[in-house]
Amino acid sequence: METNPTVVSEADSAALVNRELAFAAVRDAFLCLSDGSGQLNPVVMAPGIGEGDTFSLKSGSAAAAGLLGFKCGAYFTGADALGLPRHSSNTLLLDPVSGRLQAIVGASEVNCYRTAAANAVAAEALARENSTTLTVVGAGHQAWYEINALEGRFALERINVVSRNASRGEALVARLDQELQGVAAQLLSAEEAIPMADLLVTVTTAREPLFSAELVQPGTHVSAMGADQAGKQELPVELLLRGSLFADLPAQSLRVGEFQHVADRMNEGSVEITLLGDVLAGKATGRGGREQITVFDSSGVALQDLFVARRILDAYLGQAGAGGQAG
Amino acid sequence: METNPTVVSEADSAALVNRELAFAAVRDAFLCLSDGSGQLNPVVMAPGIGEGDTFSLKSGSAAAAGLLGFKCGAYFTGADALGLPRHSSNTLLLDPVSGRLQAIVGASEVNCYRTAAANAVAAEALARENSTTLTVVGAGHQAWYEINALEGRFALERINVVSRNASRGEALVARLDQELQGVAAQLLSAEEAIPMADLLVTVTTAREPLFSAELVQPGTHVSAMGADQAGKQELPVELLLRGSLFADLPAQSLRVGEFQHVADRMNEGSVEITLLGDVLAGKATGRGGREQITVFDSSGVALQDLFVARRILDAYLGQAGAGGQAG
Repeated sequence: METNPTVVSEADSAALVNRELAFAAVRDAFLCLSDGSGQLNPVVMAPGIGEGDTFSLKSGSAAAAGLLGFKCGAYFTGADALGLPRHSSNTLLLDPVSGRLQAIVGASEVNCYRTAAANAVAAEALARENSTTLTVVGAGHQAWYEINALEGRFALERINVVSRNASRGEALVARLDQELQGVAAQLLSAEEAIPMADLLVTVTTAREPLFSAELVQPGTHVSAMGADQAGKQELPVELLLRGSLFADLPAQSLRVGEFQHVADRMNEGSVEITLLGDVLAGKATGRGGREQITVFDSSGVALQDLFVARRILDAYLGQAGAGGQAG
Repeated sequence: METNPTVVSEADSAALVNRELAFAAVRDAFLCLSDGSGQLNPVVMAPGIGEGDTFSLKSGSAAAAGLLGFKCGAYFTGADALGLPRHSSNTLLLDPVSGRLQAIVGASEVNCYRTAAANAVAAEALARENSTTLTVVGAGHQAWYEINALEGRFALERINVVSRNASRGEALVARLDQELQGVAAQLLSAEEAIPMADLLVTVTTAREPLFSAELVQPGTHVSAMGADQAGKQELPVELLLRGSLFADLPAQSLRVGEFQHVADRMNEGSVEITLLGDVLAGKATGRGGREQITVFDSSGVALQDLFVARRILDAYLGQAGAGGQAG
């Protein structure tokens, strides 16, 4: 008999997601890109009906994990009038045996956690141990998630926020003061904040470098979270040439991620990009020494969405099985 | 506030679909391919996890109708062990203003109706009036739906079934005898049945022509329903060269449909294919005279799925609003 898919609403998935769940799931996704059991399909980028509206379908599978499905992401300006965010996402899982639609998991809030988890997994693998100072460039909606994810893995003492929008930057600092105990947060200029960073995170929609390369000190780990389209850029090319480079998916990073700006050098053979999953699996070297600059580019991979959605689904079903409130 | 999508289960959609609903919806889809308000995105064909398992994502939008979404179709051999059909489908509609997932409509049974409706819309537009004899080549699962859809539009007197599998052919004839009153059904050879046809439908997974072209009499309308991949073929090329050709989507038909086998001639300019929607809209000529052979190739278009899903959703919500049983 045909059964109905389980619907985990946006509210339910937002209540179930946390940084530990996202970290573990995204780490599994990175590993499955290394062991060859992950499959990614071409991405559909489609227009909506209103001017500038778009939706995407990003699908894949992880054979060893029995995981199969896709994320439908949307950006619709008409959401404004309804008091909803323009971005929304749902992840859909298919039963790996029958192909039936197994679950629909609201993934808008979840998506913020999963993006930040990629940063945290990379930073834990690549940054110096005992990193205590985090500098974040960008104070938009996603910045808090990035900081929260890193604060879960590092004993942070100082968080510097750099923002071209002072009021947004101040609001973020105020939130950090309130929510993170024992961490000194402040709004600084790039010139002040970047040289102090053990961990440097860029999380903007920039289309040109956010600062000059010489501000970045030896030993810094950089996570570039913003670039996901041709034309986007957060880091100066000189920084990429000084650092050792890592990506969730090198081919995608070269096409639409931060490393598109060194694609020519990659073709010439003067630049190398390491799959982060290979570092996690022990197949490739991560940081080469305390003075090395490591740069991780996150362009986003559907397998991350699938692994996170499954953990959310398991938590939701476990909660229901335990007699809890299940939607 | 975020709201949950409406789930119309496979059982509910199967109970709500009928040939009139599917006909009207598919006709709307053809028209929107003619008026330029339809948008189709690249199709994703993806592997499942088991050997030979596949799923597809076919998306599109119809701006004027405010319709947006995609169909997820799956073919999984593991379904056998669960007593389920290998094929399953769901159509997902997005809210055209907010981009939120609006509805998930079980579309496996619906899909049989929508495929057959394309045939019925084409035959009504292209076949001679007063067509009374239908010959169907193929007696698989879909054949009954094709016959049922045509029987809704034509005063059929005789239905000839051609099948290389005699027991399947006999079972279909028995079903027709039972369910269609006043129609004479019989199992015949291609040589007997094809010359008798006013309407000739092929609905097989063949990879080579099912019969020779000279069997087809002047004035016959042919609907080729089977070809949807490179290498598939139901009709002899000579028949295509004698007939006037129509398709749901000519470019797709030339790539993966029946007309792939005249793609070279199309490029040379010796063959023309007319968009069926243009005939329905009065922008192009359909049948050129009583002696013309018309050939319609259906390769399937996501817009058909979207229009059908919306009518199912409307029926489901109307039923719920009227105090009926809503899932």
